[in-house]
Amino acid sequence: MIRFENDYSEGVHEQILNRLIETNQEQTTGYGTDEYCEKARFYIKKACQAEHADVHFLVGGTQTNTTLIASILRPYQGVISATTGHIATMETGAIEATGHKILTLPSDNGKITASQVKELCSAHLESPAAIHTVQPGLVYISNPTENGTNYTKAELEELSQVCGHFNIPLMMDGARLGYALAAPNNDLSLPDIARFCDVFYIGGTKIGALFGEAAVITNDNLKKDFRYMIKQKGGMLAKGRLLGIQFETLFKENLYEDISNHAVELAMKIREGFIQKGFKLRYDSMSNQQFPILPQEALEKLNEKYSFAFWEKLDSSHTVVRICTSWATKKEHVEELVADIMKL
Amino acid sequence: MIRFENDYSEGVHEQILNRLIETNQEQTTGYGTDEYCEKARFYIKKACQAEHADVHFLVGGTQTNTTLIASILRPYQGVISATTGHIATMETGAIEATGHKILTLPSDNGKITASQVKELCSAHLESPAAIHTVQPGLVYISNPTENGTNYTKAELEELSQVCGHFNIPLMMDGARLGYALAAPNNDLSLPDIARFCDVFYIGGTKIGALFGEAAVITNDNLKKDFRYMIKQKGGMLAKGRLLGIQFETLFKENLYEDISNHAVELAMKIREGFIQKGFKLRYDSMSNQQFPILPQEALEKLNEKYSFAFWEKLDSSHTVVRICTSWATKKEHVEELVADIMKL
Amino acid sequence: MIRFENDYSEGVHEQILNRLIETNQEQTTGYGTDEYCEKARFYIKKACQAEHADVHFLVGGTQTNTTLIASILRPYQGVISATTGHIATMETGAIEATGHKILTLPSDNGKITASQVKELCSAHLESPAAIHTVQPGLVYISNPTENGTNYTKAELEELSQVCGHFNIPLMMDGARLGYALAAPNNDLSLPDIARFCDVFYIGGTKIGALFGEAAVITNDNLKKDFRYMIKQKGGMLAKGRLLGIQFETLFKENLYEDISNHAVELAMKIREGFIQKGFKLRYDSMSNQQFPILPQEALEKLNEKYSFAFWEKLDSSHTVVRICTSWATKKEHVEELVADIMKL
Amino acid sequence: MIRFENDYSEGVHEQILNRLIETNQEQTTGYGTDEYCEKARFYIKKACQAEHADVHFLVGGTQTNTTLIASILRPYQGVISATTGHIATMETGAIEATGHKILTLPSDNGKITASQVKELCSAHLESPAAIHTVQPGLVYISNPTENGTNYTKAELEELSQVCGHFNIPLMMDGARLGYALAAPNNDLSLPDIARFCDVFYIGGTKIGALFGEAAVITNDNLKKDFRYMIKQKGGMLAKGRLLGIQFETLFKENLYEDISNHAVELAMKIREGFIQKGFKLRYDSMSNQQFPILPQEALEKLNEKYSFAFWEKLDSSHTVVRICTSWATKKEHVEELVADIMKL
Repeated sequence: MIRFENDYSEGVHEQILNRLIETNQEQTTGYGTDEYCEKARFYIKKACQAEHADVHFLVGGTQTNTTLIASILRPYQGVISATTGHIATMETGAIEATGHKILTLPSDNGKITASQVKELCSAHLESPAAIHTVQPGLVYISNPTENGTNYTKAELEELSQVCGHFNIPLMMDGARLGYALAAPNNDLSLPDIARFCDVFYIGGTKIGALFGEAAVITNDNLKKDFRYMIKQKGGMLAKGRLLGIQFETLFKENLYEDISNHAVELAMKIREGFIQKGFKLRYDSMSNQQFPILPQEALEKLNEKYSFAFWEKLDSSHTVVRICTSWATKKEHVEELVADIMKL
Repeated sequence: MIRFENDYSEGVHEQILNRLIETNQEQTTGYGTDEYCEKARFYIKKACQAEHADVHFLVGGTQTNTTLIASILRPYQGVISATTGHIATMETGAIEATGHKILTLPSDNGKITASQVKELCSAHLESPAAIHTVQPGLVYISNPTENGTNYTKAELEELSQVCGHFNIPLMMDGARLGYALAAPNNDLSLPDIARFCDVFYIGGTKIGALFGEAAVITNDNLKKDFRYMIKQKGGMLAKGRLLGIQFETLFKENLYEDISNHAVELAMKIREGFIQKGFKLRYDSMSNQQFPILPQEALEKLNEKYSFAFWEKLDSSHTVVRICTSWATKKEHVEELVADIMKL
Repeated sequence: MIRFENDYSEGVHEQILNRLIETNQEQTTGYGTDEYCEKARFYIKKACQAEHADVHFLVGGTQTNTTLIASILRPYQGVISATTGHIATMETGAIEATGHKILTLPSDNGKITASQVKELCSAHLESPAAIHTVQPGLVYISNPTENGTNYTKAELEELSQVCGHFNIPLMMDGARLGYALAAPNNDLSLPDIARFCDVFYIGGTKIGALFGEAAVITNDNLKKDFRYMIKQKGGMLAKGRLLGIQFETLFKENLYEDISNHAVELAMKIREGFIQKGFKLRYDSMSNQQFPILPQEALEKLNEKYSFAFWEKLDSSHTVVRICTSWATKKEHVEELVADIMKL
Repeated sequence: MIRFENDYSEGVHEQILNRLIETNQEQTTGYGTDEYCEKARFYIKKACQAEHADVHFLVGGTQTNTTLIASILRPYQGVISATTGHIATMETGAIEATGHKILTLPSDNGKITASQVKELCSAHLESPAAIHTVQPGLVYISNPTENGTNYTKAELEELSQVCGHFNIPLMMDGARLGYALAAPNNDLSLPDIARFCDVFYIGGTKIGALFGEAAVITNDNLKKDFRYMIKQKGGMLAKGRLLGIQFETLFKENLYEDISNHAVELAMKIREGFIQKGFKLRYDSMSNQQFPILPQEALEKLNEKYSFAFWEKLDSSHTVVRICTSWATKKEHVEELVADIMKL
């Protein structure tokens, strides 16, 4: 069985593994105060052209979302998100558990628009019943989204402007950020993101690392005491150097970009295979996640050799599945899958 | 200006006021342990034919919702509610502030159905991704709803059954319960409600009292230590007897029913006035809240003498307003309003 | 049985009751936006010589403490309090329920000192392990304390200075504030308190009102959006005018001061009675709560006619009780008690 | 500089590293559902002679404490702990952030006694003011304690009995559990701990793993839905197999025991060195942490070659430091340190 169901099926990229082996016996200080973390912060800030940013390393995505959002909001404030947002659907209520409502905006493809944000903010801030409503205190977007789509520079700039208008920070969940940047239709760069977002994070778990997310805080008002938040929310790894070593390796040269490109190139081959064979895709994703709509028979046939993630039942005879590539996906597995699609 | 904008514009029903005056100099123990609370509990249990229920008195509706829901749910559980539910829209995130997500079901008229609950529960409990989703731990309904509609006995029974099937308690927000029971189309009684719901509350604030809600817990599993929850959430009034005196007066004889009937009768006159004159109503409410759709001109004309609550802008030339009657509404005010509607 | 066990055994001061009766039929807006609340705010600010303060009305003490503290602290911060503080001992974990640790300082008489605060702040802010410790974000004191003692102007000024040094606000719980101001040894005025504290509240529940606490926020940084916090924490009374009417009556002329003086004068008579008869007092209280140490026999004798609150078992043969006077205490009851003490 | 300041300075034990390398390219399911986790659970249950226990893997100690405690307590309950407990002092308020008070018992050496627990429980459960106090819902102990001391079988049994009497679960923080079991004075086994505790965890972070704690829940009442709690609190590692592989390696044969013994043997050599040379120890620790009291001169001399953790300033001329050994400590480093102690 060849697994395409997610992008965290394997261990860690070989270059990172080698660095972990090489440094294993070294003694360092704990909790992210070591020199590997220091270097990783330097390389990330350089890649983002954001020297004045604060960079923090956390273990996983839910943890990073929770810690950032809980740090930013006051108790009566909520976070705006697409109904499809990871925080709204896939984190077992982690955000609410810190006391905050998620103010959802309808979305089919995973993205939200500046005009949606504007409308919600106006309604909550200017309503005669405002005192009874949760006040928007943060806008959360994912890039790529949970549906594989990605934001354009123009869309992000507009979101940034409307956030600025209401004095509400903009946060980007970049659990798969590399795969958005590698999308053929992408026109965003890390420096763009650092400029338009008040805070974002660069995911490692799904892009070559054993685990780890690098939170980048560019807005000075959001920086204060964030390390206390990490410790309280259980995200401060004793052996913090493990995060430093991994992110240093990913960002010292172009490893993060290279392995993101690798995954997206393979995803595009799968995408083209389905399209060529006449299958429809549920979302127009140009990143590492593909969502083909499959008749029952085709699905059963492919499932003999490949495992996909169930996404949704579209109707009685069609199922949407999620197919992921990753840094670890083998080219020959993809070629085999495409060949089998052609045979359907 | 005659106020029809809400049902808490005046002080307290005269009978209650007289009892407060009569008992003012008496010395009693605090925190709800006095004899007035004891008697009020007795009369309420009698009215509900629920001798084994626990009855607790709290100060306000948001507080009662918060305290009950926080008491019932485990940390990873959420409460199912209509999108229009008071807890979902009008409590400034009070429920989320205790750590719990509100799992909303779409509703136009304020009611939710057993089949909606079933579908959501199935999705969250049986999904392959269940571990990432908030688990439903309680179903919340309002009766009457925030839109003035009310549940039938058949609807409530079905909800009760589906809750039983999933082993999830059913809670009724009765902030305006008397007005639902007084609705011409109502076929529910307090004993029915006590039988079908695991917990509910009987609102006093909007039905004759200065303030106060009587929470009735009929499910034994939900009773344990609820007084600690009240104290922690700030709802335990030092002079608890104030709540006891008010609810004793409301339930010793038929005062609660009488003043509810008074309000709904007047609301029906207003309703008929609008209908007769050809106006449409936004919701088919048979209780004390009416939601006429008014052209701009008609609204402006009526606003010269009457204040209503703004509800929503339907389109560029029509506004929905909320008109409330209450225990305190004067018959002559309603007659005047109806006459003025006829002149529009 | 004559009750001296607490200061909330009776209803409400007659002047307030009369105002409630007079205004009962009036229609006002809800949630504290009415003219009575407006006037009450005016008179309180005037009494405090603090025109620029924000004044908010809440229902009870635990609610006021919780709402203020949750509004002020960031998630990783805690509130410094005496081990004897109401928030630390008598609120069923209400503060922790909003996510915050109480950093306690040992105290026998209920007061804490500037040097204690300084030492704790230094330890938590300058420790090499600071990242693992809760950061102090607020200092909470009660005046009078839970033990009846009260702060001098010099003590309060020193606390204010040390708070200023660490940039941490100072909050005073004034659930019984009038009784502290009426203490023979008091040298503080409301304007002093408004000047030295960043936030404090003036208790009504125990000083003549049915219920209600007036929170006064003098520090501009703590004012923003506090009404949202009140709503979320369940403290926003629908019929907010009830709070306005009560506090207007208490502060329009000198009622608050007069009835506080009444209670303390009677408490001093009781205190002198015990001292004259040779009994010791557990705390040196000059306010409305007295804590005599009574041999078993004396206690039993007095309990035939009077009820006191049990405070603590000092040793096998001595018990400390709490005796409270209040605005409602009758002079003849105190004279009878003193006479009975003399007969012991 | 040779680091003795903590037991998480190095990477991972070589046997584990080798297993991570060997399995790196394998594809597994995520979130702890893989076969490595399954095997690790099997071996741990076997070592504990607790077939019916549930075993869960989390990333770090603060996270494990928080998730377990938040899962067990109802909102108005708190957890009993020594004042010195990790949760009370070193977790930046993580427990309070989930809404729960820590009810502290004084302790000098880090241990609490059954009689202390009994007294606190009686006071909170039987007090006339119980409704105002946080109810004890869990007893938390660390073994070894934060001061290096360890519980005897008799002490643990007594604690277990008093917890049973009050129907309150007993939880053991075993972040360094192996080092307690390896202490020369230890008479506890893993099966004993599984029998006396309702829940405990076996720390990996400080005993050979990169990271990871294995929570063992033996009390059926505490098992329900714990995986939802892990997900919500951010502790569910996407690549869960990393935890499985590590704990399988530690428990398949005797690795966990062997490396714990190694560390404690070396700690005993250091201990004996200090004692022989006439230094006093702050706590009587027989585990991997030693707390010598050092005159300023001796400390400065040793600091030329070795780094220790500052513990506390005992008086103007004496400092307590913490010296840790670990699975990774080199015998020759310890011999060098002992030789240098002898030269002081």
